[in-house]
Amino acid sequence: MDFEKELKKRAAGVNEALDRLVPTVRAYPGIIHEALRYSLFAGGKRLRPVLALAAAEVMGGCCRDIMPAACSLELIHTYSLIHDDLPAMDNDDLRRGMPTCHKKYGEAIALLAGDALLTRAFELISMCPVNKAITPERLIKVVSEISGAAGTGGLIGGQVVDIISSSRNMDAGILEYIHKNKTGALYRVSVRTGVILSGSAGDDLERLTQYADHLGLAFQITDDILDLVGDEKSIGKPVRSDLKNEKATYPSLYGMEKALLMSEEEMEKALEAIEVYDEKADFLRELVKFVVKRNH
Amino acid sequence: MDFEKELKKRAAGVNEALDRLVPTVRAYPGIIHEALRYSLFAGGKRLRPVLALAAAEVMGGCCRDIMPAACSLELIHTYSLIHDDLPAMDNDDLRRGMPTCHKKYGEAIALLAGDALLTRAFELISMCPVNKAITPERLIKVVSEISGAAGTGGLIGGQVVDIISSSRNMDAGILEYIHKNKTGALYRVSVRTGVILSGSAGDDLERLTQYADHLGLAFQITDDILDLVGDEKSIGKPVRSDLKNEKATYPSLYGMEKALLMSEEEMEKALEAIEVYDEKADFLRELVKFVVKRNH
Repeated sequence: MDFEKELKKRAAGVNEALDRLVPTVRAYPGIIHEALRYSLFAGGKRLRPVLALAAAEVMGGCCRDIMPAACSLELIHTYSLIHDDLPAMDNDDLRRGMPTCHKKYGEAIALLAGDALLTRAFELISMCPVNKAITPERLIKVVSEISGAAGTGGLIGGQVVDIISSSRNMDAGILEYIHKNKTGALYRVSVRTGVILSGSAGDDLERLTQYADHLGLAFQITDDILDLVGDEKSIGKPVRSDLKNEKATYPSLYGMEKALLMSEEEMEKALEAIEVYDEKADFLRELVKFVVKRNH
Repeated sequence: MDFEKELKKRAAGVNEALDRLVPTVRAYPGIIHEALRYSLFAGGKRLRPVLALAAAEVMGGCCRDIMPAACSLELIHTYSLIHDDLPAMDNDDLRRGMPTCHKKYGEAIALLAGDALLTRAFELISMCPVNKAITPERLIKVVSEISGAAGTGGLIGGQVVDIISSSRNMDAGILEYIHKNKTGALYRVSVRTGVILSGSAGDDLERLTQYADHLGLAFQITDDILDLVGDEKSIGKPVRSDLKNEKATYPSLYGMEKALLMSEEEMEKALEAIEVYDEKADFLRELVKFVVKRNH
């Protein structure tokens, strides 16, 4: 498998669906749709929808029909980035080399664009066509799981602790909490969405959840490492930003050598969690290797 | 019926449920739950949940079981107030005589408290116990309706147009769009939620939707009138604020006499829409009269 090519192909499929599922600038009031599309189509890797679809694939689920629910995860991710970038939060002017949403559209519209993406995410879940696997019961379970993962016991909780913790009082426990919730919770629920809407549960749900948790941690540790040793051009964002912001990271807390070892360990654990599956899980296997071995 | 007493009794029931359904400060991270509860329990009339429950009552639905969905509407209302008050939006320091959420907790926590309330709203819908009337199909329909009403085709759309329209380019059409969406959409979907989760549809849904639309307009026109002629002490907020902000209102566009007439007409149309129902609709009848006749 040429993994990067395959990932791009799948991301392109997600982009097509997002374009279809999100109102355009022609829908009144145009400015809000322009602003939210500006951020939504700013070049993300679409990892969360791709994870949901890949998990469904392992379970033999239908990718086309769960696409709206998969896309809802990208909308939630994008909303969190827009709000995170606002002056009241991280006050970032650039994201992926482009002006952030509030730099381009003003704070009020950026705030509302984030709100709109979060709101639309739940509408998308309700748009999945009901079939044998995608029952209304399971759709409601997905609403429950995604709202839980995006709420104060997940994504928002992670953001809150990130804000109130300075580098001075940061320890390994707090760092883990932030990552587990600020980024890990959405990876976890992405995979779970794919499994649930394929009609699977029990051991399968447990195994793929384990996979997602280790993947999320591997991702975060690698991100921290790349921020320290990476090259600005290939990463596509300013490096050494964690140092400048005095943010605690895995390398700063554990040292570079141990951090590298930890990312490898998480990769191994992710692979182990899904070893019972046949080649339908190969994409997920390649994904976690890619996450750890990448240089961007 | 002593309507104001009855309204207070019902609001107290909603408050009890909200207290049960929203995490407390003891849930980590405490500060976000403290902040969102600060705004949630700042003394609202709970009109939206009360409307949902009253509509269910007309249809013979079970009030206890739809309570989480009814409460979700209050969470969405409160989120919109918190975000509206932020410096990037209306920049209000006070609401109901108390410091706004960001004045008390800072902008970052207020932003996230709004996000958390919106997210929790959808989780609450998924928490309604399934029974004969509250089927998973209907819960998904409610997710669809509420996300639609709260999105860019409803609440958020109204906020966007309110922001981008100055008093100079405001006309009757834009004013109507703003009210229909910024406030009307949530009244409408509150009533619809109660009807749908009682297992009703068709003509009943249509009639009660009509009622809600006229109620919402009556409410808005009366608010505009009270802002102009009301007494600061009994309204509980600064009066003449629309004049100061150069906001277009029904009295400013149509004149006071015509505005008063319009509010009466909307009340009559609301009553007409539900005239086929027996005394179970009396609470809704008294409500629209109260809205138009109140002096606060």
